[in-house]
Amino acid sequence: MNSFGTLFRLTTFGESHGAAVGGVIDGVPPGVEIDMDFIQGELNRRRPGQSALTTPRKEADKVEFLSGIFEGVTTGCPIGFIVRNEHQHSSDYENLRNLYRPSHADYTYQQKYGIRDHRGGGRSSARETIARVVGGAVAKLVLQKYQIRITAYTSQVGNIKLTEPYTAYDFSEIEKNPVRCPDIEKAAQMAELIAEVKAGGDTIGGVITGVIQGLPVGLGEPCFGKFHAQLGAAMLSINAAKGFEYGAGFAGVEKRGSELNDVFFVGETGKIRTRTNNSGGVQGGITNGEDVYFRVAFKPVATLLREQQTVNLQGESVVVKARGRHDACVLPRAVPIVEAMTAMVVLDALMLNSIVKC
Amino acid sequence: MNSFGTLFRLTTFGESHGAAVGGVIDGVPPGVEIDMDFIQGELNRRRPGQSALTTPRKEADKVEFLSGIFEGVTTGCPIGFIVRNEHQHSSDYENLRNLYRPSHADYTYQQKYGIRDHRGGGRSSARETIARVVGGAVAKLVLQKYQIRITAYTSQVGNIKLTEPYTAYDFSEIEKNPVRCPDIEKAAQMAELIAEVKAGGDTIGGVITGVIQGLPVGLGEPCFGKFHAQLGAAMLSINAAKGFEYGAGFAGVEKRGSELNDVFFVGETGKIRTRTNNSGGVQGGITNGEDVYFRVAFKPVATLLREQQTVNLQGESVVVKARGRHDACVLPRAVPIVEAMTAMVVLDALMLNSIVKC
Amino acid sequence: MNSFGTLFRLTTFGESHGAAVGGVIDGVPPGVEIDMDFIQGELNRRRPGQSALTTPRKEADKVEFLSGIFEGVTTGCPIGFIVRNEHQHSSDYENLRNLYRPSHADYTYQQKYGIRDHRGGGRSSARETIARVVGGAVAKLVLQKYQIRITAYTSQVGNIKLTEPYTAYDFSEIEKNPVRCPDIEKAAQMAELIAEVKAGGDTIGGVITGVIQGLPVGLGEPCFGKFHAQLGAAMLSINAAKGFEYGAGFAGVEKRGSELNDVFFVGETGKIRTRTNNSGGVQGGITNGEDVYFRVAFKPVATLLREQQTVNLQGESVVVKARGRHDACVLPRAVPIVEAMTAMVVLDALMLNSIVKC
Amino acid sequence: MNSFGTLFRLTTFGESHGAAVGGVIDGVPPGVEIDMDFIQGELNRRRPGQSALTTPRKEADKVEFLSGIFEGVTTGCPIGFIVRNEHQHSSDYENLRNLYRPSHADYTYQQKYGIRDHRGGGRSSARETIARVVGGAVAKLVLQKYQIRITAYTSQVGNIKLTEPYTAYDFSEIEKNPVRCPDIEKAAQMAELIAEVKAGGDTIGGVITGVIQGLPVGLGEPCFGKFHAQLGAAMLSINAAKGFEYGAGFAGVEKRGSELNDVFFVGETGKIRTRTNNSGGVQGGITNGEDVYFRVAFKPVATLLREQQTVNLQGESVVVKARGRHDACVLPRAVPIVEAMTAMVVLDALMLNSIVKC
Repeated sequence: MNSFGTLFRLTTFGESHGAAVGGVIDGVPPGVEIDMDFIQGELNRRRPGQSALTTPRKEADKVEFLSGIFEGVTTGCPIGFIVRNEHQHSSDYENLRNLYRPSHADYTYQQKYGIRDHRGGGRSSARETIARVVGGAVAKLVLQKYQIRITAYTSQVGNIKLTEPYTAYDFSEIEKNPVRCPDIEKAAQMAELIAEVKAGGDTIGGVITGVIQGLPVGLGEPCFGKFHAQLGAAMLSINAAKGFEYGAGFAGVEKRGSELNDVFFVGETGKIRTRTNNSGGVQGGITNGEDVYFRVAFKPVATLLREQQTVNLQGESVVVKARGRHDACVLPRAVPIVEAMTAMVVLDALMLNSIVKC
Repeated sequence: MNSFGTLFRLTTFGESHGAAVGGVIDGVPPGVEIDMDFIQGELNRRRPGQSALTTPRKEADKVEFLSGIFEGVTTGCPIGFIVRNEHQHSSDYENLRNLYRPSHADYTYQQKYGIRDHRGGGRSSARETIARVVGGAVAKLVLQKYQIRITAYTSQVGNIKLTEPYTAYDFSEIEKNPVRCPDIEKAAQMAELIAEVKAGGDTIGGVITGVIQGLPVGLGEPCFGKFHAQLGAAMLSINAAKGFEYGAGFAGVEKRGSELNDVFFVGETGKIRTRTNNSGGVQGGITNGEDVYFRVAFKPVATLLREQQTVNLQGESVVVKARGRHDACVLPRAVPIVEAMTAMVVLDALMLNSIVKC
Repeated sequence: MNSFGTLFRLTTFGESHGAAVGGVIDGVPPGVEIDMDFIQGELNRRRPGQSALTTPRKEADKVEFLSGIFEGVTTGCPIGFIVRNEHQHSSDYENLRNLYRPSHADYTYQQKYGIRDHRGGGRSSARETIARVVGGAVAKLVLQKYQIRITAYTSQVGNIKLTEPYTAYDFSEIEKNPVRCPDIEKAAQMAELIAEVKAGGDTIGGVITGVIQGLPVGLGEPCFGKFHAQLGAAMLSINAAKGFEYGAGFAGVEKRGSELNDVFFVGETGKIRTRTNNSGGVQGGITNGEDVYFRVAFKPVATLLREQQTVNLQGESVVVKARGRHDACVLPRAVPIVEAMTAMVVLDALMLNSIVKC
Repeated sequence: MNSFGTLFRLTTFGESHGAAVGGVIDGVPPGVEIDMDFIQGELNRRRPGQSALTTPRKEADKVEFLSGIFEGVTTGCPIGFIVRNEHQHSSDYENLRNLYRPSHADYTYQQKYGIRDHRGGGRSSARETIARVVGGAVAKLVLQKYQIRITAYTSQVGNIKLTEPYTAYDFSEIEKNPVRCPDIEKAAQMAELIAEVKAGGDTIGGVITGVIQGLPVGLGEPCFGKFHAQLGAAMLSINAAKGFEYGAGFAGVEKRGSELNDVFFVGETGKIRTRTNNSGGVQGGITNGEDVYFRVAFKPVATLLREQQTVNLQGESVVVKARGRHDACVLPRAVPIVEAMTAMVVLDALMLNSIVKC
């Protein structure tokens, strides 16, 4: 289904080449001031054509809110919104009507539904994430009063990777370069790599690191609804995501318990803290007040501006070469999407947790 | 909440030191023969005390079904079941009443609920997974007629790891050694490592690889309910899980699209196949008929049989040393749990997909 | 929350005086031809200003579909749609900003949310039902292939009531008169009563009877999801609904079991039937293949074109008199809404039931 | 599915002739003292054999709690519980294996699932309601601190009915007579009628009135989740329920808006009140702080101790006559079930509402 979240719930619709993408945000607390510039700013971070690194496809991506906001403030009623699709060069896709692009959803959609909109990937298009960014932006506005800060950045592109933990970086650098990487030198190398890959009509993957700071203790459920399970599901639902880890993650499995356990102590304010944070801010599925940090793996974009072998609907061998305008690396534009999904997970968990002591 | 799944839904209850753990399995199709020996066999694979590698705590873990089965066959009504807790040495835990064990859920539970059952971790206890194994065993029985095969094995313990892809191994070897690793030599090394770690009162983590074979095309939803997102959420909801990846996973991010894309061809039976399977059997969130394979990272068990520094409820610095019987490595016993959760995800997706063409 | 249904799910948004009302229809089976004229026709049945009996407020109520339909056919992707609000005379409501209208939601909204859009009732406005009619129209199109027929009609206005069971009436008469009553004589009396009430600035209630024909055996769940419980919840969620009964309903409680039980027999086609249908087509929560019939009570519209005593936000006694254009009787326009909600309940139950034998 | 509620959620299992009925109560706030005597007392009110009016089937109906309660107090973890089935005279039902009882669920179950437990109605048995009473009793314990009072009583049996509104009765009389009717004289007449009907091997229906006092303003959702829609669904999910109305209900449709509207005024404590309460405590789907009152119609029990015509599985005409022990009138024992379902609806709405201002 196309809904996300339990109490703060986003329902989305829209294909890249239909009239619009949009959604309904349900469960928004009343009385929240809606800063339209902030929301549009988040959309602009996701927008194609924002830098030389991304697809030159230009879309205004202007959001129109249709309900749930009265005199600039949320009313507690569902917020409907749409973003019109403008620069649809559907003819770029006419040659795709009869074939299955490698590592795209063409084949699986056709088999599952017996029909598909061949233009631009339908629901698998990156345009679907517009609605996520809007939902996440509204969630961020709600989270402001809790002083919870959500940050994501590109930590790896191809084989160029940041080796320090997130605490080593100055987050204010992230938005200053088009790769959205806080290490300026590495950012430049990444940008170079992307340009090189793009020039060859190829694509490249990478990793985004996410950090949540200022979380209260108690978010998440002990069993199936563990905080990191919700977060992982959210990240894995983003296009091209192939893996998720938090805290010590995959690397931690080589360590002993005595090395990895996070020892408690009483901090200066009297608050119980842990000396290390291998747990990644979550213990037993519930946040412990330390920072939550995690990494999301993204595969290279499947659409290549070079020839690939594939089959058509009749099962004949054919060659496909994408026309149109496409990203060579999804990472820079995926940063705001990772943040958006994180914000919705956090707010939903916060709302669920508020009931416990009702 | 304590329910898992949409149409095939498991709801669980129970703490390690309460009267019983159990659950309700809802949405079980009618007319399925319930092979009690098979289900008990699955529980035995999870049971403590099954080998020298695992905790010597002995529990019969005998499941009693209370409803939903009539004359050996499911009726379509919910299946209630319980497994009594027998060997609860609650006194082993009396010293824990007033302190927070490092990297356990003690602190987060206390903060979230204002109360906790200090004996053995409550809902965070490994005993909670009994209900998952029962649910998964029932799901496996339903899946038999679809000829879907689910296999999991230990692919890494500490720094000892299998380096070949799953296709290189003979799955019939897995259950022949207590580590549940298909590489006999590596299995022996892993067992040795676990024994060594255990002797030092320490613990060690590892990785479990899961494989789903025989899946139809079409399982999973395009957007938030992507097949791998559901699977990832399931895996991350297992105790001690720290990461999930599928297909080419984290390693794949260094590759170019031209290397990683899975090229389609028409197989011998006329079925459309892919020459490689870096997608891990899922494209656009929907299964494509190839094998789904994935890896789950498990951190070392938090309970150590050696002294650790921590704080008590009054915020004073204290030393804790676990008494009782505990696993030094959770991997061997987590293999059936990974399979169980996988089986439930697959069946739920299968049921959801069956509606599409209703 | 603002979603309805489990597998066929409608999520709605929109207030009467915002930019638009609309929704997302999720779970629509792929391959269904979307007859735009039919859908617009359903909206026209609900539209204000369609006859002298209803409010003269004229809205085009033109629906725009934004996704999920490709070349005239559903794709299985969510269908987003909007209907713009046009004739909002918000100034008609300015005097309501500071007071609570009797038997409206003004007071409860203000208390619940601490804020409200005072113009026209917000989410409690009859305009919210536009989205229901669109969802129901799509459901009806899906149901066509199952040959399930859903009919509703006005069976009572004030004290003028139809006394015969639904089987006594010719349903083709319903849409021929503005009251939507199959008894022409009674329809005329009802119209007269409504006109009289309206002339006095007053309003009047009534009853709508619904009938579902051609249902398969097996829809509904045995326990909480009984078919009639789902149907009842749907009906009671319509504005101004005060009661729901099905089959023999309230009147049946005076009968003995020996009078009311529906005796089985084998019909001409070999199908098992019941000689009477006091059960209203549902036994043990599950449809038995007989017609489902039910009645929904609607209270008189709360908005009066005459003076009423009330209080303002400061708790002072004030007088309110509605300006603007309002219905004196909601029944005629509620008929398509009852049908729409019924269609969605039926389709959702049909989809859920299709899994049982997966 | 077999779950009820969103945040306070009961999942039930069990057939009348299986090993046990039971359930899982999820979402119980932590720190609530569990008064076992109160809960057992609620079960005793529902228990068969409690008076000459009810079935002489004697069951201890002793509840065993298995989790979620520690040292007498809820922990916030799910509460699992079972009630063993003891006096199952399954042989009483052997003659039912091959036929469909009139107005029972035998036929619909067989058609839906292709299999059924013919003994005693399976999930349609009144025994299923045991789990509801346990869930409701726990909800009542949570509600105590909110000073919300839930009362139900028998207001009609056959043609003997209470004619006064609920405010005219002394609720402390209800439990003093076996019919659970606050009018002692009418209670005696009802008892007499039930005895007479029973003597003839027949059964009779009736109406239960429910009242909720002390509700805060704000429970319920504006659209699909209207408070009365949730309540109606809950009531209609009880066995044998045929109708639900609240406030002025069906009778109110004959009134004019000017008669039925509830005029606001400021009460002595400065609280805004309504002079009348035709709304039944709900406006726009949200509670307004006035009493909620409602009526539920129950048809006569389908099981008759006299011969009835029916068909068998082969479609042949046969005669059935129930053996065993059965109620001639379900009303007295349904009173605690109505209360239980009401308590769960109220608590769930209360928890949902608590989020609004998070």
